[in-house]
Amino acid sequence: MPKTTLTLSSKNYSSWSLRGWLLARFAGLDFEEEMVATDDADARAEMLLLAPSILVPCLRHQGVKVWDTLAIAEYLAEVKPKAGLLPAERAARAHCRAICGEMHSGFVSLRSALPMNLKGHYPDYKVWSRAQGDIQRVLAIWQECLATYGGPWLFGQQRSMADAMYAPVVTRFRTYDVAVPDPASRAWCDRILALPEMQEWTAAALLEPEAIDELEVEF
Amino acid sequence: MPKTTLTLSSKNYSSWSLRGWLLARFAGLDFEEEMVATDDADARAEMLLLAPSILVPCLRHQGVKVWDTLAIAEYLAEVKPKAGLLPAERAARAHCRAICGEMHSGFVSLRSALPMNLKGHYPDYKVWSRAQGDIQRVLAIWQECLATYGGPWLFGQQRSMADAMYAPVVTRFRTYDVAVPDPASRAWCDRILALPEMQEWTAAALLEPEAIDELEVEF
Repeated sequence: MPKTTLTLSSKNYSSWSLRGWLLARFAGLDFEEEMVATDDADARAEMLLLAPSILVPCLRHQGVKVWDTLAIAEYLAEVKPKAGLLPAERAARAHCRAICGEMHSGFVSLRSALPMNLKGHYPDYKVWSRAQGDIQRVLAIWQECLATYGGPWLFGQQRSMADAMYAPVVTRFRTYDVAVPDPASRAWCDRILALPEMQEWTAAALLEPEAIDELEVEF
Repeated sequence: MPKTTLTLSSKNYSSWSLRGWLLARFAGLDFEEEMVATDDADARAEMLLLAPSILVPCLRHQGVKVWDTLAIAEYLAEVKPKAGLLPAERAARAHCRAICGEMHSGFVSLRSALPMNLKGHYPDYKVWSRAQGDIQRVLAIWQECLATYGGPWLFGQQRSMADAMYAPVVTRFRTYDVAVPDPASRAWCDRILALPEMQEWTAAALLEPEAIDELEVEF
């Protein structure tokens, strides 16, 4: 049996890499990390938020190759059903997929205005006005999920794909000093940042050499 | 039991509406269409390709509300498993989800350079250079799927969610005169355009009053 691998790029900058890695960890998958060179054009484009690439994250498992973060999430939910990446109840499952889809295809302003940067901290950061709408929507999503399903995770007792999909946003809100008014949402953010998986990933990000000269998004 | 509805915006301009509608039709769902006013700000933003919105497409079915096109696709695959929206074999299913994910979160340049416009036809349209990379990737996806699974649809004998996800791109290539060199892919494009569902949708689009003054994308 070939070994299971997950291809990643920068741990400091690549939010899609972090999502894929968290999903694989939440699923309890045993895998090796394969880092792509950050001077690869597609990997750079992905880190610079221009587009998700087919390079990262990319999972190879039992002869199957899956790229695209949501496809990886669905694949892991199938092969590791007990991990609870998807809620057991149909309406909750549809809700979970809907907000994961929103993160996957949307929030373009938030993603370009507040790029993930685990090493950085910018107190009193001035948020581009168009990103404010995205921030409000994200806050509303978290608040609704935690109120509906009772926490401690977005869809209740088990960490689902939604917690992995929104974890990079939690780090962005910390990096750029974005306030989270709802107490339940704030507690969930703290819970995400305190996860052993997040601590491990962040520690590796902080040790990463600076490979990117500039982090400019050209839309 | 409340009635099943699918919320849509413009049939001429809204590629996400078309995807959701095709998915529901491919699934064999019995539903009523609910059109949102095109002067609604979110619906306009969605049509202007700025962002997918949570307004369209939005499916209400048996007390469950699902928005986001991929979430609707997964929901329909669950409630109508015999429709074959997802391939039966695990590796093909992962492949299908991966290319649906690419369409869902990517191809930003293609989507902004070649907005869906079923009424329009622009022979010798000059394609913005950055969109060329997206076009090449789309052509490679189609060619690989048709060669791997043997057609007539992207994943073989049954129409899958991938055929619905890529159908709006087929109309864009026709509207803007983008060449499809691979004969199998060209035949698949013709097959998509000849679908009774596509003919029905397009006929309605052509009758639609002009509600949008300009179709400008501000990225």
